[in-house]
Amino acid sequence: MTVNLAPLYAVLKRTGLNAVAVVPGANFLRVFGKDFHQMERPLVVIVPQDGEPVAVVPHLEMGSFTPLGFVGKVFTWRDEEGFRDAFLAAGAALPQLRVGARVGVEGQRMRVFDYLALQEALPGAVLIDAHGEISAIRLHKTAGEIAKLRTAIQLSEAALEATLAEVKIGMSETEIEQVLLRQLFAHGADGLSFEPIVAAGDNAARPHAKARSTYRIKPGDALLFDFGGRHGGYSADITRTFFVGQVSDHDRAFYDTVLAANAKGRAVARPGISAGDLDDAVLKILEHSQFAAFARHKTGHGLGLDIHEAPQIMRGNGQFLEPGMVFTIEPGLYRDGEAGVRIEDNVVVTETGIECLTTFPRELRIVG
Amino acid sequence: MTVNLAPLYAVLKRTGLNAVAVVPGANFLRVFGKDFHQMERPLVVIVPQDGEPVAVVPHLEMGSFTPLGFVGKVFTWRDEEGFRDAFLAAGAALPQLRVGARVGVEGQRMRVFDYLALQEALPGAVLIDAHGEISAIRLHKTAGEIAKLRTAIQLSEAALEATLAEVKIGMSETEIEQVLLRQLFAHGADGLSFEPIVAAGDNAARPHAKARSTYRIKPGDALLFDFGGRHGGYSADITRTFFVGQVSDHDRAFYDTVLAANAKGRAVARPGISAGDLDDAVLKILEHSQFAAFARHKTGHGLGLDIHEAPQIMRGNGQFLEPGMVFTIEPGLYRDGEAGVRIEDNVVVTETGIECLTTFPRELRIVG
Repeated sequence: MTVNLAPLYAVLKRTGLNAVAVVPGANFLRVFGKDFHQMERPLVVIVPQDGEPVAVVPHLEMGSFTPLGFVGKVFTWRDEEGFRDAFLAAGAALPQLRVGARVGVEGQRMRVFDYLALQEALPGAVLIDAHGEISAIRLHKTAGEIAKLRTAIQLSEAALEATLAEVKIGMSETEIEQVLLRQLFAHGADGLSFEPIVAAGDNAARPHAKARSTYRIKPGDALLFDFGGRHGGYSADITRTFFVGQVSDHDRAFYDTVLAANAKGRAVARPGISAGDLDDAVLKILEHSQFAAFARHKTGHGLGLDIHEAPQIMRGNGQFLEPGMVFTIEPGLYRDGEAGVRIEDNVVVTETGIECLTTFPRELRIVG
Repeated sequence: MTVNLAPLYAVLKRTGLNAVAVVPGANFLRVFGKDFHQMERPLVVIVPQDGEPVAVVPHLEMGSFTPLGFVGKVFTWRDEEGFRDAFLAAGAALPQLRVGARVGVEGQRMRVFDYLALQEALPGAVLIDAHGEISAIRLHKTAGEIAKLRTAIQLSEAALEATLAEVKIGMSETEIEQVLLRQLFAHGADGLSFEPIVAAGDNAARPHAKARSTYRIKPGDALLFDFGGRHGGYSADITRTFFVGQVSDHDRAFYDTVLAANAKGRAVARPGISAGDLDDAVLKILEHSQFAAFARHKTGHGLGLDIHEAPQIMRGNGQFLEPGMVFTIEPGLYRDGEAGVRIEDNVVVTETGIECLTTFPRELRIVG
């Protein structure tokens, strides 16, 4: 639980940036061993290549920040003062970050009001979106991280099995979602990876659907669960699609096409293949099928302290897979207004291939 | 569930901005009746004072975006293309937003990579942090919103009571947190307002503490719960502090000081008083007590689709309270390394005063 800035110094060395500025979130958690809320109170830590690190911390959070053992200058601000002066003081303490200095920030995480305050505090410095470069500190998972993820996955799969035992024709999507939520926490989740997707029929054709209280599942519906429980900061991200009561031959072929794509992904993923080539191999199964028109998204994304992180399993991504990388394999097909199927696994790259951490059966299953 | 941009046009009229650009989040949800994930795929809607609105939407989300009935130009992009060209095309469709045009953005919500893409798409336009002005569309809650919040609060309070029935001396903070999570979903929460705080002893002195698996509650500890269940998008945000097994006279006086401040806030809050004056009245109770040194934060924050929103109940905030505003009253005192007490209620301003939506008893209670 003590801060270790070494990974950020490695980023500075690798990128040639003069400094990085990190805000609460997954990278912060990895470096500081603790995270903070990101609401109306900005908290930023600036790590320059030369000179002492500097932090701007809400006074309210000092009781949590101080024990982290941060070595550097800390500028605090109280609610009634606002944060501007603390940022200006932090900037004054970083005179080396002026005209021409390049400061990397987390573009997908830092918010505009942090950015503007930082820009004002470091006049002349150029703030650069270095989200990928900074987040690379989390690209290779440790055995301890994988153990936590494994626990998150196991409890999530057990919760799904328990949920299916309660699913009955005529239940609404939100009723089923309620069962899933209850089962996740009954099985020991300490949080949710994200708001679960429980979507049936036409709603399953929306990749990021929201459960409806008004729709009751009926025979022949696809029933898609995309969900995960969290454990110790690590999040499962699992999708399975079932059919309610019965399945048509057309839907079975639809399902089996996605399953074949998923299996292809698990078969070809290994160290040395690029993320782009993996996506290509999976998408080709969909694109060479009778359902080619219904593909809509890439194969997957990295998974760790963030739910969506590197490596993106996406055409054009030349990043080579390496041992310790964790990502999803989640091909899907979506027939607007009719049905959607997605089958999502979580895998870790090993020395010789992958280990699939998710083990919930993938064969077409009738529920309800 | 159909988009209604009228509140955003009212913002344009009130502020004189030439356009606003909104991203998924509470304001988006209020306007579109639906929210979207905010991860690696930017989604931005730009509403100009003159001319047609324009949206940049990930292709993946079009199945969810199209049914919203947005009238305007939509530029989509696929994962493998990246979003830059879609932003540039959107900018080309907004030639009125060029040199000198002022475009308001949600500074506490929009991320740097959205901002930089938008800035490139609208060369010469000035992007301005208008978070407060845009979020003002949510300042006055409807009866329907308050009904949802009331449900969220009722289920949360029932879950707390059920949790206390299971609390025993010797349990760890995380074990108690697990009970609370299970009880929230058993009582019908459809999500969490935020990761709950369950903190005992010295940890209770950290306003945003995280439950520890290593600390077991013992007689004399303060035991603080800051938590809430969600219902239909609306979030309870409740804090109660108990003592485990016994309480010292010193801690009782400490507790009663916070309780007096909480009661003061509930007594003086009414239409026509400013948020700053309300905070002042509450803080004076703390500052004129023997525990003045242990005050650390403002009295409260607005509560709605966002957990922390306007009105901030904070000295210097001249915003007058008006019927329909909903906020927290949550004074606290924190003795570093020893104990913390916070008592947090959720109130709605009525025509003549406030209604306190939280009703969980506030008198000092011994648990375990």
